[in-house]
Amino acid sequence: MAAKLERAWRPSGVVSLLTDFGLVDPYVGVMHGVILAGAPRARVVDLTHGVPAQDIAVAAFYLERSWKYFPVGSVHLAVVDPGVGSDRRILAVSHGGHIFLAPDNGLLTAFCADATWVRSLDIERFSLAERSRTFHGRDVFAPTAARLVEGLDPRELGPVCDDPELRPIGGPRRISERAVEAHVLLVDRFGNLVTDLRAVDLEGSASQWVARVGERRIPILATYSDARAGELIALVDSFGCVELAVVKGSAARRLALSPGAKVRFERT
Amino acid sequence: MAAKLERAWRPSGVVSLLTDFGLVDPYVGVMHGVILAGAPRARVVDLTHGVPAQDIAVAAFYLERSWKYFPVGSVHLAVVDPGVGSDRRILAVSHGGHIFLAPDNGLLTAFCADATWVRSLDIERFSLAERSRTFHGRDVFAPTAARLVEGLDPRELGPVCDDPELRPIGGPRRISERAVEAHVLLVDRFGNLVTDLRAVDLEGSASQWVARVGERRIPILATYSDARAGELIALVDSFGCVELAVVKGSAARRLALSPGAKVRFERT
Amino acid sequence: MAAKLERAWRPSGVVSLLTDFGLVDPYVGVMHGVILAGAPRARVVDLTHGVPAQDIAVAAFYLERSWKYFPVGSVHLAVVDPGVGSDRRILAVSHGGHIFLAPDNGLLTAFCADATWVRSLDIERFSLAERSRTFHGRDVFAPTAARLVEGLDPRELGPVCDDPELRPIGGPRRISERAVEAHVLLVDRFGNLVTDLRAVDLEGSASQWVARVGERRIPILATYSDARAGELIALVDSFGCVELAVVKGSAARRLALSPGAKVRFERT
Repeated sequence: MAAKLERAWRPSGVVSLLTDFGLVDPYVGVMHGVILAGAPRARVVDLTHGVPAQDIAVAAFYLERSWKYFPVGSVHLAVVDPGVGSDRRILAVSHGGHIFLAPDNGLLTAFCADATWVRSLDIERFSLAERSRTFHGRDVFAPTAARLVEGLDPRELGPVCDDPELRPIGGPRRISERAVEAHVLLVDRFGNLVTDLRAVDLEGSASQWVARVGERRIPILATYSDARAGELIALVDSFGCVELAVVKGSAARRLALSPGAKVRFERT
Repeated sequence: MAAKLERAWRPSGVVSLLTDFGLVDPYVGVMHGVILAGAPRARVVDLTHGVPAQDIAVAAFYLERSWKYFPVGSVHLAVVDPGVGSDRRILAVSHGGHIFLAPDNGLLTAFCADATWVRSLDIERFSLAERSRTFHGRDVFAPTAARLVEGLDPRELGPVCDDPELRPIGGPRRISERAVEAHVLLVDRFGNLVTDLRAVDLEGSASQWVARVGERRIPILATYSDARAGELIALVDSFGCVELAVVKGSAARRLALSPGAKVRFERT
Repeated sequence: MAAKLERAWRPSGVVSLLTDFGLVDPYVGVMHGVILAGAPRARVVDLTHGVPAQDIAVAAFYLERSWKYFPVGSVHLAVVDPGVGSDRRILAVSHGGHIFLAPDNGLLTAFCADATWVRSLDIERFSLAERSRTFHGRDVFAPTAARLVEGLDPRELGPVCDDPELRPIGGPRRISERAVEAHVLLVDRFGNLVTDLRAVDLEGSASQWVARVGERRIPILATYSDARAGELIALVDSFGCVELAVVKGSAARRLALSPGAKVRFERT
């Protein structure tokens, strides 16, 4: 009785796209075209195409924090795919009533942990008639999403896969009772430094902690409006992660930090 | 009998989004997800997410010139929100058969002037179950738009508000019968300098006026194709504003002007 | 009996947009609004708005390689329009069950060759009530697309046009039995140099040829994963064209080539 009960797939019609393709080339538009050709009622949403080229960690971060805002029955295509053209597999993961499709490169690690099932996509069966070796977003992912929107039983996507590639989940490291070492995960458009430290993982309330960068001690405030323009602060972002920010400025420039940099948090 | 007759709200299903979020982070995609989760038949249109960070004036300029091209019954979300996290209100404005939602920071000034009504959104009532302090686009604006698409009577959005924050409408200044001082409002992607001078506000025909920048006298032509490549001209843009342009070049670079700069117009 | 049999127009509801407008200004969003105002059931897809300003060759390249991935019955608006405001015509081309609309500037050359028909749009008839001289994407193209989605017989778009402007199709030049001179057509977001040489136009198999840039001899491989990171390779891209690439790097930077540069291909 340990097996998870699986609810029947009821497609919402929504397909989200997450890639590193950018919006200058017509790659994303063509994926929309393929999906609508196969599933006229599909609603295709661009989650983002601004993932840094081949950055699986950022892609995973975005997807893990976004999927639950979509309706149950959504299909999420995450195409950050350094191995395209090799014989790497494509995974389909059923998790929380959503279906996730991504190359088998660790991108879906967080969803595999608690999945209803993980399958290896039958690539031959679901591809367009002509399949290129460089653009599986168009030739494999998009037509598969269309089939799911049209009502395909997701268990037909391929055989169960029990050895998906999993990324090591790095994450913050506890140094002592009063200190945690976290990392800059990404820099957003406003220059905010998003770390891998989740507020819920701090003991007590976040306001009892400070970030340390060099000699600076940066308080964790409740909101931007508790600080003055130009002030360097930390706060819990809208996805629950602690970020460093400069009010109406750029923390990335102020601190000269980039993704991967360590940030220490100390309890006061 | 001065009260405006109000037509019943008939949602078109269209929701436009105008923000300063950019398209690199997944913020915009997540807003689409929330809207479609609440209103499966919604049609979400990205008006633009390229508003300069926290630039309320540019956001207002874009929205004022764009909304009338959308179907009656559309919902417009304008989320340029320096005060997010504070106790600033969110306004809902009914104007011309459309509903506009924006922070109470002056963005909707032009729509308040001639509104059917202005309301202060009941934020508690319309938020997602969990509301962050930094991302009201996702947690308040998007679910409210979904409710409107689903047929909520917009008069239920909240109590009438009779003291919305209004921006001072700067605009051009008449200097004499034959001279007007206008301002550069923004620089578009082609390097055109869009001013706040509307052609309809010039006496006589626009072609009787010239722009003056330093010693240069720049004629107002009817169209780009009346000039040669590299020529500096003024013309009435597609939104009815006078802009300075260099044919197949950049007026911003040629004149070294940026938003806020004064441009004098003189009658010939 | 030479006349092409014409199938009846059955709109798919899909309208693709290809422009050089970028996504910073609200131009594209407004086109979506106009289309949805005229055709509530339209599905508007942004093919790309990243065409370099007024670059008709790149726009044509993108459209020629993308259209067939859209459902039959789609309308494609390609608005790269240096002549807007002049009396240039707008062409409507019926080709393969799709309708293409673009300024009469050569953009649709490839579609005219094998068209069911080419028509000159009756601009007066299909414009919005107010038509600007600078933004026909909004004022002419978008409302026309809406009419087609709503079922207008495309033969009513305007009179048959038998003298469309045609671009000289440059393309690669055969130098000898064993050598072809091709050109860099564009640089994509990854720094890949896409050439105008189609793999199907090489005699024998592509792997029998090498690209020559200066003294370098660059092999044509089957896929990225056949090479090591940092290696300079050529391969057949997902649209069937030969491109030069650096694995996990930028061929444009490595070779310092830009669009228009010649690339020689030699048979080994």
